[in-house]
Amino acid sequence: MALTGVLRPGHVQLRMLDLEEGVRFYRDVLGLEETGRDAAGRVYLKAWDERDHHSIVLRQADRAGMDFFGFKVASSADLDRFEAELRDDGLKTERIPAGELLETGERLRFELPSGHLIELYAEKTFVGSHFGQKDPKPWTPHQDRGIAPMRFDHALLYGPNVDRVLDIFTRILGFHLAEYVTLPDSDVKGALWLCCSNKAHDIAFVIHPEPGKLHHVSFYMESIDRVFRAADIMAAHDIKVDIGPTRHGITRGGTIYAWDPSGNRFETFSGGNSSYPDLPPIAWTWEGLGEGGGLDVAHRTMHETFLTVVT
Amino acid sequence: MALTGVLRPGHVQLRMLDLEEGVRFYRDVLGLEETGRDAAGRVYLKAWDERDHHSIVLRQADRAGMDFFGFKVASSADLDRFEAELRDDGLKTERIPAGELLETGERLRFELPSGHLIELYAEKTFVGSHFGQKDPKPWTPHQDRGIAPMRFDHALLYGPNVDRVLDIFTRILGFHLAEYVTLPDSDVKGALWLCCSNKAHDIAFVIHPEPGKLHHVSFYMESIDRVFRAADIMAAHDIKVDIGPTRHGITRGGTIYAWDPSGNRFETFSGGNSSYPDLPPIAWTWEGLGEGGGLDVAHRTMHETFLTVVT
Amino acid sequence: MALTGVLRPGHVQLRMLDLEEGVRFYRDVLGLEETGRDAAGRVYLKAWDERDHHSIVLRQADRAGMDFFGFKVASSADLDRFEAELRDDGLKTERIPAGELLETGERLRFELPSGHLIELYAEKTFVGSHFGQKDPKPWTPHQDRGIAPMRFDHALLYGPNVDRVLDIFTRILGFHLAEYVTLPDSDVKGALWLCCSNKAHDIAFVIHPEPGKLHHVSFYMESIDRVFRAADIMAAHDIKVDIGPTRHGITRGGTIYAWDPSGNRFETFSGGNSSYPDLPPIAWTWEGLGEGGGLDVAHRTMHETFLTVVT
Amino acid sequence: MALTGVLRPGHVQLRMLDLEEGVRFYRDVLGLEETGRDAAGRVYLKAWDERDHHSIVLRQADRAGMDFFGFKVASSADLDRFEAELRDDGLKTERIPAGELLETGERLRFELPSGHLIELYAEKTFVGSHFGQKDPKPWTPHQDRGIAPMRFDHALLYGPNVDRVLDIFTRILGFHLAEYVTLPDSDVKGALWLCCSNKAHDIAFVIHPEPGKLHHVSFYMESIDRVFRAADIMAAHDIKVDIGPTRHGITRGGTIYAWDPSGNRFETFSGGNSSYPDLPPIAWTWEGLGEGGGLDVAHRTMHETFLTVVT
Repeated sequence: MALTGVLRPGHVQLRMLDLEEGVRFYRDVLGLEETGRDAAGRVYLKAWDERDHHSIVLRQADRAGMDFFGFKVASSADLDRFEAELRDDGLKTERIPAGELLETGERLRFELPSGHLIELYAEKTFVGSHFGQKDPKPWTPHQDRGIAPMRFDHALLYGPNVDRVLDIFTRILGFHLAEYVTLPDSDVKGALWLCCSNKAHDIAFVIHPEPGKLHHVSFYMESIDRVFRAADIMAAHDIKVDIGPTRHGITRGGTIYAWDPSGNRFETFSGGNSSYPDLPPIAWTWEGLGEGGGLDVAHRTMHETFLTVVT
Repeated sequence: MALTGVLRPGHVQLRMLDLEEGVRFYRDVLGLEETGRDAAGRVYLKAWDERDHHSIVLRQADRAGMDFFGFKVASSADLDRFEAELRDDGLKTERIPAGELLETGERLRFELPSGHLIELYAEKTFVGSHFGQKDPKPWTPHQDRGIAPMRFDHALLYGPNVDRVLDIFTRILGFHLAEYVTLPDSDVKGALWLCCSNKAHDIAFVIHPEPGKLHHVSFYMESIDRVFRAADIMAAHDIKVDIGPTRHGITRGGTIYAWDPSGNRFETFSGGNSSYPDLPPIAWTWEGLGEGGGLDVAHRTMHETFLTVVT
Repeated sequence: MALTGVLRPGHVQLRMLDLEEGVRFYRDVLGLEETGRDAAGRVYLKAWDERDHHSIVLRQADRAGMDFFGFKVASSADLDRFEAELRDDGLKTERIPAGELLETGERLRFELPSGHLIELYAEKTFVGSHFGQKDPKPWTPHQDRGIAPMRFDHALLYGPNVDRVLDIFTRILGFHLAEYVTLPDSDVKGALWLCCSNKAHDIAFVIHPEPGKLHHVSFYMESIDRVFRAADIMAAHDIKVDIGPTRHGITRGGTIYAWDPSGNRFETFSGGNSSYPDLPPIAWTWEGLGEGGGLDVAHRTMHETFLTVVT
Repeated sequence: MALTGVLRPGHVQLRMLDLEEGVRFYRDVLGLEETGRDAAGRVYLKAWDERDHHSIVLRQADRAGMDFFGFKVASSADLDRFEAELRDDGLKTERIPAGELLETGERLRFELPSGHLIELYAEKTFVGSHFGQKDPKPWTPHQDRGIAPMRFDHALLYGPNVDRVLDIFTRILGFHLAEYVTLPDSDVKGALWLCCSNKAHDIAFVIHPEPGKLHHVSFYMESIDRVFRAADIMAAHDIKVDIGPTRHGITRGGTIYAWDPSGNRFETFSGGNSSYPDLPPIAWTWEGLGEGGGLDVAHRTMHETFLTVVT
């Protein structure tokens, strides 16, 4: 009870048009730590407050985007249970053997009706942080290396059938809906912010005709001050910014959207509402998303890129 | 799954030596909103980002301290299940009828071996925040009324038998242990930080010979800047500060400990680690708590009041 | 010596298309305090950390913009000296009798070759702040009323002949040039940031064909956190934002540009470099102003409104 | 006019009981940059936003403390003028040849009646910052190396005859008094905060029987967030903290007092009032300094070390 089943976003595999350029960005500019490379040439990274072996996996590819998004679950029994329930629901599932991702146990993979590959896994090597586990240090220089987010926080994914996605996440995976946006002149939920914890969100979806698209991966910053510092460091490395610094009305988080060297959007995010499954979700209209500041509190307008640029 | 069973700290009832003086403090200095008074004269308050009817209940008494601490659970079925498991464990439980606390459903109450009354309840009236639930406002003046914490966050309780408390919270209530302190030259866990979410903690205990004591109730601030502002407002109202502003090594949160007019300690707290049930708890030695900055990163010393002043 | 002659920006008179709407904005949204109204119907306001009677004067008019900008000087002898030097330089000067502006002594007025009316004055009633002058309070609620800048900080003015303006401010008025921008493919200084103190700037000019135009008046915020809060409050009052939150490369200050109800641009500004007369000015190219982030560090682009929208 | 004569604190020479230990602290923990060493073995350092060759000079000695405090003046003519006026006032002055301090012109030195050696100099090599002077970079990693203050800001000195010191600084050197403290049951000014700019202060004095003592040298931080980060880094390097993080009522600045390895107190300071010569100084009583929060807003008490521990 309390936190059970799906615990948290655990990893995301991103496609890089130039792998080493991508590594230089995620490691030296964003400030993640490289924790391994595998035989397939993939590069594994983690943020300074993450304690599992990795959260970001980069691979060389000829188009940008996300291969899959993985959640850590509490136990291997959860894998069996979720597998059964997902199959009962008509979804095909696949088991990927332990070790296919470095330091990671067996993964249960399935494809959402939105076209995204989601994985569940119960084991990943605990490597700890530089604070240590016993009488931890009050500070480590890793907190200031590059943009230096605390953790990979969530992703926003674009694809069709978000009504089915909502059903799968809430009914089977135990998530709750924290906030949503209805389409223009409609009650149809066109955008979803979903939680398996009391964070502002753990994964989000926006309806989109093309399946399997990535809108952004998001990294958590400790404060608005640190979001501003992220903008300075982006500028120093000539990283192109899409939106922000501003606040999202949705989640009330501080934000910058920008692009990695392969054109994948990433976010540096801070604060954000707490959410709980017993609280009614916050409802945004389409106008609220744009003119109401759901996307951009400071400017209260729809940015065209928000709806059109995905990888 | 995900967030199930015990969801979050829901309320705490505090004893005031002078009720109206207490109300003036919690409402006008701390900046909570008064949401009701009952026939027994109790005063109910909530913070600006809380959406349930109340989190703090004040009553007139001739000694300070805490009457009980309540957690919101996901459903009334949880109440039945927890009742059975608590009784199986030899704890006496009591049902308090709906309405005994304003706008609150039936409560399941039991006494911990530490001498504290804990309550579980599944229903409390959702009153919402001033942001609203549909196209919420980006800001309300309530965010700046007094010290203006976002929410009641947790309490630290002092009493005996914390080993039994740990067992009850983890085995029955589904909490996980985020951090703990061992007693001098010992493996005995003398202090516990326990979570039912991925917050830094939802309730904490320190071993103490006298049962049922309150160390502090804690209120969550949005940033270090706001913790500093809290110190300014405390000073403007001549609120006596115990410790801080500083950072706790334990939880890595920003903090001020200070006293309400009845002598109950309260905390204004910001940031803090995230925690998950699959991550090993962080272990502090007794020296780590003091000289290691577990209590006070800036000064790295044990403050005598931390161990001796409780209500 | 040390700080002598021209001390600081003291006031600016702004034209409002609807005076009471303007008062509601500057008093209730920006959070200035109304300190008086005169027989001509003008409304006087000050910020919470200002100690002179007023800094902002609003008047009803049929077009927006700035009537005049006034600097406080150290003594009435300074007025005589500056009058002589300005006249020697061929500028016409005018004396405006004490009391024409409320609580303000005699003013020496002259028109810059850029078409702006500048005033110098040695006397304005010291009204103090709400902190008090003896054992001041650590905090007053005025710090949180509306956007709540500490002070009117500077203005940016658009007009022709900025080379002459530079000469007058540095040779006669004793300012130093902190930063400047050269025009495209040119050594001509097209934009000037000028200081009479060690602030980032006290007044600034950009070359522009039409004389006497106002680009923005700027208000000083205590921190980046407070600039972000300003954006929230602007959104809550549906104030249209031009640029930001972002950082200016020029001055390194945090910034939001937005518009008052009459269409005058204002800025909420924080931080910023210190400057001294013996340090060489920082030189920006035209490309540096745009793509180099001089205007907008996060986005590193020229915003068309920066060059075209003035009042 | 505007900023003339004495411009700013320019350097301070500190005595280290173990020079290399001192260098490791000021360079690697505080985060200053080493800019040179001279034939006498002295080590020169500067902060990341300082543009002159150095601000801190360290030398090996058998007792801690400060050798001298130097101010940059606008011109060598100022040196001549101040020399004449100081001599007229009965003070002995001395000229120290250019080059005696690395990259520094001739210095005019005199001893205050408080027993402190003050220097004025007009020339020091401009080395610039890592931002550069033309289209400066938006960020450099030097901003995050160690505690990373922007600049040496001021010093607080203890000694006798502060009435004479006040007279010399205001009448001869052109400073203004920003704030002061009167002794218990007395009108005698026992503590002075003096400015040659519109900063909160540029030098300060407290009356003390022993002449020539150093209370602290202060370093300017960009924000409260950065003061808190300084505490974390101090803790990580086991730097002993005296007071803070807290706010001074005097100057309203955020502060930590701590000790360098030789026992010299230093401060990490942020924010602070602006001051101007035409504004009346803020007056603190002795009770205001202690119980009124002049020293420590959060705790509102006199810390014994403030009055007794100097080097």
